[in-house]
Amino acid sequence: MPKVQFIFAIHNHQPVGNFDFVAEEAYQKSYLPFVKLLEKHSKIKITLHYTGILYHFFERHHPDFIDMLKKLVAEGRAEILSGGFYEPILAVLPDDDKIGQIKMLTNYVRAVLGYDAGGMWLAERVWEPHLPRPIAAAGINHVVVDDFHFKMAGLRDDDLDGYYLTEEQDSVLRIFPGSERLRYLIPFRPPEETIELLASLRSTERNRLAVMADDGEKFGIWPETYHSVYEEGWLDRFFTLIEQSGDWLETTTFSEYLKKEPPRGRIYLPTASYMEMGEWSLPTRAMKEYDEALAKVKNSPEFGGLRPFIKGGFWRNFLAKYSESNHMYKRMMMVSRKVREALGAPDGPGAGKTGLLSPMVDHLYQSQCNDSYWHGVFGGLYLPHLRSAVYEHLIQAEELADKTLRTGKAKGGRGKGEDRENKAGWLEVETGDFDCDGSEEVMLNSELLNIFIDPAEGGRISELDWKPRSFNLTNTLTRRREVYHEKILQMVRDRASDAPGGAQTIHERVAVKEEGLQFHLLYDWYVRGSLLDHFLGSGVDLASFMRSEYYEAGDFVLGSYGVKSDRTNGRAVVVLERSGSVAGLGVKLQKELSLRSAASGFTVKYMITNLSAEELNTSFGPEFNFSLLAGDAHDRYYDIPGHVLDRRNLASIGETNNVNQVGLVDEWLKLRLSLVFSQPAVLWRAPVETVSQSEAGFERVYQSSMVMPIWRISLGPGSSWGIEIAVKIE
Amino acid sequence: MPKVQFIFAIHNHQPVGNFDFVAEEAYQKSYLPFVKLLEKHSKIKITLHYTGILYHFFERHHPDFIDMLKKLVAEGRAEILSGGFYEPILAVLPDDDKIGQIKMLTNYVRAVLGYDAGGMWLAERVWEPHLPRPIAAAGINHVVVDDFHFKMAGLRDDDLDGYYLTEEQDSVLRIFPGSERLRYLIPFRPPEETIELLASLRSTERNRLAVMADDGEKFGIWPETYHSVYEEGWLDRFFTLIEQSGDWLETTTFSEYLKKEPPRGRIYLPTASYMEMGEWSLPTRAMKEYDEALAKVKNSPEFGGLRPFIKGGFWRNFLAKYSESNHMYKRMMMVSRKVREALGAPDGPGAGKTGLLSPMVDHLYQSQCNDSYWHGVFGGLYLPHLRSAVYEHLIQAEELADKTLRTGKAKGGRGKGEDRENKAGWLEVETGDFDCDGSEEVMLNSELLNIFIDPAEGGRISELDWKPRSFNLTNTLTRRREVYHEKILQMVRDRASDAPGGAQTIHERVAVKEEGLQFHLLYDWYVRGSLLDHFLGSGVDLASFMRSEYYEAGDFVLGSYGVKSDRTNGRAVVVLERSGSVAGLGVKLQKELSLRSAASGFTVKYMITNLSAEELNTSFGPEFNFSLLAGDAHDRYYDIPGHVLDRRNLASIGETNNVNQVGLVDEWLKLRLSLVFSQPAVLWRAPVETVSQSEAGFERVYQSSMVMPIWRISLGPGSSWGIEIAVKIE
Repeated sequence: MPKVQFIFAIHNHQPVGNFDFVAEEAYQKSYLPFVKLLEKHSKIKITLHYTGILYHFFERHHPDFIDMLKKLVAEGRAEILSGGFYEPILAVLPDDDKIGQIKMLTNYVRAVLGYDAGGMWLAERVWEPHLPRPIAAAGINHVVVDDFHFKMAGLRDDDLDGYYLTEEQDSVLRIFPGSERLRYLIPFRPPEETIELLASLRSTERNRLAVMADDGEKFGIWPETYHSVYEEGWLDRFFTLIEQSGDWLETTTFSEYLKKEPPRGRIYLPTASYMEMGEWSLPTRAMKEYDEALAKVKNSPEFGGLRPFIKGGFWRNFLAKYSESNHMYKRMMMVSRKVREALGAPDGPGAGKTGLLSPMVDHLYQSQCNDSYWHGVFGGLYLPHLRSAVYEHLIQAEELADKTLRTGKAKGGRGKGEDRENKAGWLEVETGDFDCDGSEEVMLNSELLNIFIDPAEGGRISELDWKPRSFNLTNTLTRRREVYHEKILQMVRDRASDAPGGAQTIHERVAVKEEGLQFHLLYDWYVRGSLLDHFLGSGVDLASFMRSEYYEAGDFVLGSYGVKSDRTNGRAVVVLERSGSVAGLGVKLQKELSLRSAASGFTVKYMITNLSAEELNTSFGPEFNFSLLAGDAHDRYYDIPGHVLDRRNLASIGETNNVNQVGLVDEWLKLRLSLVFSQPAVLWRAPVETVSQSEAGFERVYQSSMVMPIWRISLGPGSSWGIEIAVKIE
Repeated sequence: MPKVQFIFAIHNHQPVGNFDFVAEEAYQKSYLPFVKLLEKHSKIKITLHYTGILYHFFERHHPDFIDMLKKLVAEGRAEILSGGFYEPILAVLPDDDKIGQIKMLTNYVRAVLGYDAGGMWLAERVWEPHLPRPIAAAGINHVVVDDFHFKMAGLRDDDLDGYYLTEEQDSVLRIFPGSERLRYLIPFRPPEETIELLASLRSTERNRLAVMADDGEKFGIWPETYHSVYEEGWLDRFFTLIEQSGDWLETTTFSEYLKKEPPRGRIYLPTASYMEMGEWSLPTRAMKEYDEALAKVKNSPEFGGLRPFIKGGFWRNFLAKYSESNHMYKRMMMVSRKVREALGAPDGPGAGKTGLLSPMVDHLYQSQCNDSYWHGVFGGLYLPHLRSAVYEHLIQAEELADKTLRTGKAKGGRGKGEDRENKAGWLEVETGDFDCDGSEEVMLNSELLNIFIDPAEGGRISELDWKPRSFNLTNTLTRRREVYHEKILQMVRDRASDAPGGAQTIHERVAVKEEGLQFHLLYDWYVRGSLLDHFLGSGVDLASFMRSEYYEAGDFVLGSYGVKSDRTNGRAVVVLERSGSVAGLGVKLQKELSLRSAASGFTVKYMITNLSAEELNTSFGPEFNFSLLAGDAHDRYYDIPGHVLDRRNLASIGETNNVNQVGLVDEWLKLRLSLVFSQPAVLWRAPVETVSQSEAGFERVYQSSMVMPIWRISLGPGSSWGIEIAVKIE
């Protein structure tokens, strides 16, 4: 008699760069109790995926947990899934890295758990049709995505009680559809409802399959679930019900099911992820339309048939939506190129030879962890410490690659390290379209610093890496409108219309982590960075500037600059020049950035020339943004010598006159960044803060400190004015 | 003052295998008059794409037309687009072939027209995100798709007045959105409406772009258009209006526009084609739901906002929808592998060395022409002569590759041709999952024949190639339900409810190419091929059999067979065996297919054993399907020796008793195919005919002749019965 086959697959993950205490909480409240319950229910088969980040965490803090997993494996009760070791969005990696990340986890699982994984977890279920080839090349035979993927291809629920074959250029892959209905039932509805749904699949003709594949954190970490799943015993009851179901229901794993059942057919999946990701990856305008459209369909039975045809956006467009995500991604691609080059270099670490990954490759792979590159219902891209971890690993991977490549260039295989001891340090100037925007950027790469300059976008510094700390000092985020901001405003309106002093609903308290968030819903009209050249009309104050409610007199911030770069005698010079207009008058702005090979800072010389026949009266302010991760920590503060501004925190806002120098101190990172001006300036400083959603509700996040010296200038026709700014890091 | 920029791009194509008279008509009614009008309007710039098939046609029949194109190029008025030479769906080709097809057209255009093409036409606008890499590797810089692609990514009309950048793994590509509104206006609405639309784009801020990119056949070949476009002067008027528009409107080309304008932004397009293709590529059930859903939205202003989110299927699923398309595609992939192998062989033609394509590669590329692989509003896959052309080129490419590879295997670089002269001929037996369905097939490959056997699907012959004519004799098509069949039935119902003798509307006359099509709406429950093992209960007649309205007593037609294959002494033997049931009794069926190396035919020995303890009474009929392209041609007919059935045509239907032999004669192909039976049989023959839509309306198409010998068998418990069938081709 055919049985209903049930595959229960859970995916467990914590991002690279997340705090250990977060992983520890997840371990105590979810990972550990889940497996303990499994030990108790010996008839249940399970499919488990932990990302490499978690295996490393277990090894360090809970080696006994690894033993528990080994036992499940030894009993033949668990399928262990492979996947990208550091949980990257596989589709957007270089092919070599796709294969390398998967093999790394497969090898790890084989070595540590003694399990040969033939299946994998696809991070965020981001599918593209080219994937079967690299996935198969990594030795993987089957993968699970959502039923939504299959519905997009035109299949329906009754087609989805098994698995399908797909292929690309002769590489075949087996794909299982995970059930959206089960995702919503488990563990939020009584376990009997899941059993009922499974029972509805009973058939006299064949073994029908149901797959539940979702985050393990749903069992204990998601709000309220520790109580319901363990304290109230949801999971224990669910396992018991399965064990007592008699003969019609059987738990199995992907690999077991494959051995006994043929495919349901052939399928080609379009670019897809789970349904919610389709919404998040849309541009904000379209996302709003989409939400409205979907709500209409949900409320109209007549239009229910439309549901399977309504589709959102495509994951890769996070790179179009958030330029910071694009920058990080293109930097990763650039470092990956260098790493491949270094691996092939005569003195390269040659991963292929030993089968072990070099630290260089490991750092590269860590930088590919998906969480920081996008934003949905979790913080993701909006969280500076996650982005910072990406840059930290990118900078380290790049340093190791650069070192190998420089050694190679210096010839003589034995000469390793020579270059490092060269007193003059080293310095490279590269030009190329690193961010693939159709125009060229300049990269200065020295012993201590990386400086990326984007001439086409305001001649802006888009990245400033301090290598001794592997830290990107301009890792900020532009303040953008998000669809959910409307909810905050709505909440304020709702509250205002309530009876005065009316109690907040629980929903309100949960959703908002602080009062007054609505006042922080401010938006930028340009992408933040450093050396953004503002010309301000009179009457512009700091508050209106930060609210983007002021008149920008010049056209330089978004303007395109001409560029020349040169390297001579251990000094790189980049000259950026633009003829634009300020308050209708022709103005030429030249900024010359100069970096010495072994220097721990650089200088910028500005020269502004009035090209018009009239007097130019304006204020000039080059904007800097520095991100030191925490705005209000006691060990991070401003230092303005000569002014009574003792250790104001980095989220403070204020205007100071007659400033020759400003320092941003981070005692935790052991870092001091100073701007020294050749003429005293009025100094504006203000925090750049975003409002974003996370699993815990809406929150304000400090992204960077905006620092801008301002000079009042009056220039007769044809005359020029100049200033020099030294940027020092120590 | 900024101008509205208008790009007018036309794509001209005729499928490989199409009749020359069709191309000639298209030339006279569309290609020639279009370019003649261009000559008259010297201010108009134009973008032109002709597929390689058409260039070859022009060279052979209208070399003067090439000169006309050269003149346009020399005047700097025309951009010539490259693309896949034989118009393949680029996304599904092996990467080498993607690049090779494009380079072939680029090189041709450079050599013949003196034009360096930097842009390309993407066949059927089938986009996948991995494409920028091979496209860029082929030297292409820009491509045009539909605005629909961009809308799927969440962009809206006001975002689409320019081009976007996209990239994949460091390869950058520029993509232009072609306007759907312009596609519907041109040339169907008065030209003034297009000018009005263009005028609505006038802006004081920047040069805004509108792109019309569509089939050239819309100008003269599509129904009624020769009259409207040329006789009534639509196109002349349109060009004149543009020329007289004054300064605000300017025609340009993709390559010119790129030189003067930056991109509008960055975009990542999901898997997409034009809107209609999304509908056609859905499974039939979903396609019906989709049509209904779309109709609802169109008729409901409230749901208008949903429109951009409603998306259909994915091109590759034509391979899941039509197993014949999958078979053809997987055969092409298989031949492409062999060709790559042969190119790398010591005696291979080595395309890389000379820059010239070998005939082997040319045949492979011809077999990739897209039209035969799918079906929408044109005949496509439903047209036997188009499929036959694909097989013709596949078989030729494979023969050339096999020859090279065999010579290589025979060692000694000088030994070319030796193998061919070997009297015994040659013979290979290969096993592998050629069609990527998860189970293995067997391929017999000899001097004269290819035989593909699919054990998992009824032990069926899925392809039978007669190499001397490069002809696949089983190139038939299964009769499937299509959504538009409902329209035919609706028409019949509508007519029945009309006043008796009511006149047909023009619409009806246009849509249906013959009366009584509804009686041909018959559907198969298995994929057609040869050696389909039927067991028929008493009372089944030929008519009910062909209508699929009968009781199939056995479970062999869709059943899976065990297989053993062997090659010894110049003879290959494939033994297929299945224990199944007939009318509830256990039955073992063994069929042994035997092929000698130099033979022009093969034999099949059947052995049927009653495994049960009861008497087995049944009729056994192995079904053959042979496709000889025309059912009712005077030079194609049946020959049944000893019977007074003089030259019945291949679409005839009938039952003949006591037949020892049946021949299918094709005097045009100079081919006679005979089945010789070791015992006299009752012979059924009937045409397999499909009903499909084409641009001219619904039509019945002859696909193959079903031929089935039937024997009545009575078997006691444990006893066996055998028969031998010889298949001869001469």
